[in-house]
Amino acid sequence: AMEKSYVSTFLLLIVISCALAKDVGKKDTKETTAKPKLPQTLSRGWGDQLIWTQTYEEALFRAKHSNKPLMIIHHLEDCPHSQALKKAFAEHKDIQKLAEKFILLNLVYETTDKNLAPDGQYVPRILFIDPSLTVRADITGRYSNRLYAYEPSDISLLHSNMQKAMKFLKTEL
Amino acid sequence: AMEKSYVSTFLLLIVISCALAKDVGKKDTKETTAKPKLPQTLSRGWGDQLIWTQTYEEALFRAKHSNKPLMIIHHLEDCPHSQALKKAFAEHKDIQKLAEKFILLNLVYETTDKNLAPDGQYVPRILFIDPSLTVRADITGRYSNRLYAYEPSDISLLHSNMQKAMKFLKTEL
Repeated sequence: AMEKSYVSTFLLLIVISCALAKDVGKKDTKETTAKPKLPQTLSRGWGDQLIWTQTYEEALFRAKHSNKPLMIIHHLEDCPHSQALKKAFAEHKDIQKLAEKFILLNLVYETTDKNLAPDGQYVPRILFIDPSLTVRADITGRYSNRLYAYEPSDISLLHSNMQKAMKFLKTEL
Repeated sequence: AMEKSYVSTFLLLIVISCALAKDVGKKDTKETTAKPKLPQTLSRGWGDQLIWTQTYEEALFRAKHSNKPLMIIHHLEDCPHSQALKKAFAEHKDIQKLAEKFILLNLVYETTDKNLAPDGQYVPRILFIDPSLTVRADITGRYSNRLYAYEPSDISLLHSNMQKAMKFLKTEL
């Protein structure tokens, strides 16, 4: 009986759309089939000098035990909006400095936790989680139809949202 | 109400023990607090020229859609048995070559899927998953108390187990 432990139930249907993207069709399809640059990095270009967690489980564990907020960036390598935001994020010195105070995770595959998609699955999408492991659904960007999306021009708002995330929901000792 | 979506239920108690390790206490505690070498790689030294998936969700998706078996290595950076197995794995040319035919994932944090711990959580522990998303609990190492553990001296058995995993449970077109 043990030989057949199906894990299919664990695999949810994964639907990802590139937020605000009208020009995805333009991309050369070669890009998606190209092999990644080796060795692959956990930062994926969002900040090579920062420490990134690998998985959601690791990130939750570290946020809870280090009492740091968790910042989760959902993105896709071949989404031009994700790429543009990544460039702005990586080049913004204050963001890179403030990011050191966070547990960081960037994901190109969705997790099975629906709490990470309060208004659906799309990229780019940035969510903050309090060290109490509460999703900070109150920390949003400028777009009412995609609350957790940011464009490169929103980079200052993202920075101030990171400052907001540093003020925890519960300040207990 | 949306502001408070607790994710704590998603975070299971994570218990990891270093299999067969009698000398963990000897390690300098500095090692566990040391910052990782930047930028961090997905391979973590198990084969820098191989393509590694980042998360379990990604690995399941790719195994299913590429019709390749999935190989999951649970390990810890400061577990001497994991380190020794990693060295043997990375230096074994036939294993590195055969590994190209697998979807590969190495994890230092446990997932929440109990199917990945048929006889408990320990490291190092290597499991194979069929493209049909069935855990190959029949592919085991030499140790009856920890069926999925391997020592460096078992590297040939690991190689032949990889060959076994290439023969799928269901060969449907």
